[in-house]
Amino acid sequence: MPKSRLFTPGPTFVPEAALSAMSRQAMHHRTPEFRRILAEVLAGLKEVFVTRNEVLLLSSSGTGAMEAAVVNLVPRGGKAVVLDSGKFAGRWRILCETFGIRAVRYELPWGAAFEPARVAALLREHADAAAVFATLMETSTGVGHDIAGISRAVKENGEALFVVDGISGVGAMECRTDEWGIDVLAVGSQKALMTPPGLAFLAVSPAAWRRIEANPKRPAFYFDLLAYREALSGGDTPYTPAIPLVLALAESLKTIRARGMEAIWAKTRLLAAAFRAGIEALGLKLAAARPADGMTAVFLPEGIDGKTFLDRLEKRFGIKLAGGQGPWKGKIFRMAHFGLIDELDVLATLTAVELLLLEFGITVKPGAAVAAGIQCIAESGRS
Amino acid sequence: MPKSRLFTPGPTFVPEAALSAMSRQAMHHRTPEFRRILAEVLAGLKEVFVTRNEVLLLSSSGTGAMEAAVVNLVPRGGKAVVLDSGKFAGRWRILCETFGIRAVRYELPWGAAFEPARVAALLREHADAAAVFATLMETSTGVGHDIAGISRAVKENGEALFVVDGISGVGAMECRTDEWGIDVLAVGSQKALMTPPGLAFLAVSPAAWRRIEANPKRPAFYFDLLAYREALSGGDTPYTPAIPLVLALAESLKTIRARGMEAIWAKTRLLAAAFRAGIEALGLKLAAARPADGMTAVFLPEGIDGKTFLDRLEKRFGIKLAGGQGPWKGKIFRMAHFGLIDELDVLATLTAVELLLLEFGITVKPGAAVAAGIQCIAESGRS
Repeated sequence: MPKSRLFTPGPTFVPEAALSAMSRQAMHHRTPEFRRILAEVLAGLKEVFVTRNEVLLLSSSGTGAMEAAVVNLVPRGGKAVVLDSGKFAGRWRILCETFGIRAVRYELPWGAAFEPARVAALLREHADAAAVFATLMETSTGVGHDIAGISRAVKENGEALFVVDGISGVGAMECRTDEWGIDVLAVGSQKALMTPPGLAFLAVSPAAWRRIEANPKRPAFYFDLLAYREALSGGDTPYTPAIPLVLALAESLKTIRARGMEAIWAKTRLLAAAFRAGIEALGLKLAAARPADGMTAVFLPEGIDGKTFLDRLEKRFGIKLAGGQGPWKGKIFRMAHFGLIDELDVLATLTAVELLLLEFGITVKPGAAVAAGIQCIAESGRS
Repeated sequence: MPKSRLFTPGPTFVPEAALSAMSRQAMHHRTPEFRRILAEVLAGLKEVFVTRNEVLLLSSSGTGAMEAAVVNLVPRGGKAVVLDSGKFAGRWRILCETFGIRAVRYELPWGAAFEPARVAALLREHADAAAVFATLMETSTGVGHDIAGISRAVKENGEALFVVDGISGVGAMECRTDEWGIDVLAVGSQKALMTPPGLAFLAVSPAAWRRIEANPKRPAFYFDLLAYREALSGGDTPYTPAIPLVLALAESLKTIRARGMEAIWAKTRLLAAAFRAGIEALGLKLAAARPADGMTAVFLPEGIDGKTFLDRLEKRFGIKLAGGQGPWKGKIFRMAHFGLIDELDVLATLTAVELLLLEFGITVKPGAAVAAGIQCIAESGRS
């Protein structure tokens, strides 16, 4: 077995201190010690989300946080605008349909980016929409959507709340919850927060709380956000939380806060730029019309099967990238630029991709990818 | 700080091997290795639950599994019988109400045990009830309900499915899912399974699956059991699972399977008997009319505040027991008899309780509690 290089857009590597924290013998959660750690974690998350809104911690995957946003905010029979392009954006639509909410879709082909002007037009047409559901970084396509612009379109066209799936982007790439006017932000633990999967978070604005309070028949118990808010007022969670994951997150957040969000966003941007410079030097095509900082999705050359390529990459070098989903199954690979992944990881991955392409009989200039990546990083170092 | 002795009925101490498993660097879940571990875990859980029914793994607290049972089995507008006595049984009722299900209550005061004959009568009166919701071990009162007897009453009186909250009892005390006719069994990770909180499990009978399939409008996405079954057919979970907790569970299950369920049930029964012998020797009163094997709840003498007593117990000896909830807040203490807790822990706790009672000015014969407990254990060793 080669060494493991887990570079998928989640789960991602976890810092040693966070791993160690999980191996600590069990503690009870209704204790001053755990309450102190939980409070510290929630304060840290506010810093990462750049928000003064209340932050809630759920013991579930990110999908649970998405469900919580849908069922708490929009009553059965209500209407919502869903920005639907890619596997995860599509989940907003399915959630709406599951809970009897009419989803007005702004649908685009995979890889495309939503235009704020079209969101505005849709809201003028559907003034009764209770919420707009969007995605910061669409992990299935690598698109980074214009959340600031879309939010302005939402705010200028009625009373709809703006809800963003930031599960995999937040903590990696710029996301200013309050400044951008995000009413509900959903985030997952196993991405840029460098914590194992099993926790999800929601930052909820005062306007969103008012809407939740005015929705007494919300079909929610485990995901009833008012129960979380009430428990939080006593420093607790309403149900037993996944304690070791909270302890791990406390450690990862120390690393993140020490670094600062601006510095982390800049580093993510640099890794993305370097990786893309290398990918373009190889003549490969990016999958996203508007690539996110937090990851890159790349089309493989015609005739190379994605599974075969990624299996060989892992077998030879332990590099685990993600493949394509849905219509892009077998056609793309996806690499994260967040968490513990650094410049050398990006350059090493470019090197490995280049080597494999050569072995698959694709004509590339040896060293071209890493040269382009190095140049990009060096330029940034000089400036 | 004294050493930690966490003896609450969950969370409970976790074996060293399970703790170590969590500190392993992150792995991806869509891999042959994780699928192998998940399959091993599900096979182990079937052994613990004594079932051939399909077992599903959710990343949530036990409450999530309860919600999943309710929303998948009973359609909005349907009817269910709820055996309601204690905080956790009451959760079945609240879940039904939340999701628009009419809950016919068989309500008893805290500490009482349900009678199968009355369940039968209720079902004859409500032949249209889709399900009966019951509790194996009511953690708020320490009652162990007659699940085998209640199940017979259910099966002999109509078509209602029998659903049991076994969150804290299963794995500690006898529970024969298939033999007893439990259609849906909900279990949590942080109790007798000796794993941290954050995972929940459901064992689902063929009859329950048919009911779920016939309930197309179930308000469930994160807890949609058909999605779990479909993912499971490919060895997966539908959403990213709490990976480190699954790795921990795999280790804890090795310990449990090596021991065997009959042996574990017998040990739990012995610990309960020894603890109760000691408690009775102190002149204290059990809270449960039908005490569960998995834990004991005890009334404190009049005039001793529960919080003060438990705080001193923890400060002096690191023994953490649980206090009372709801109407019994400040009036009882609760000790688990499962997991890593052994005979010496039970005897030490009796000793500490006795010592504190003396210090609080209660007249007890020094050594009486531990003497009664020892005698009980020694008798069992001789037989």
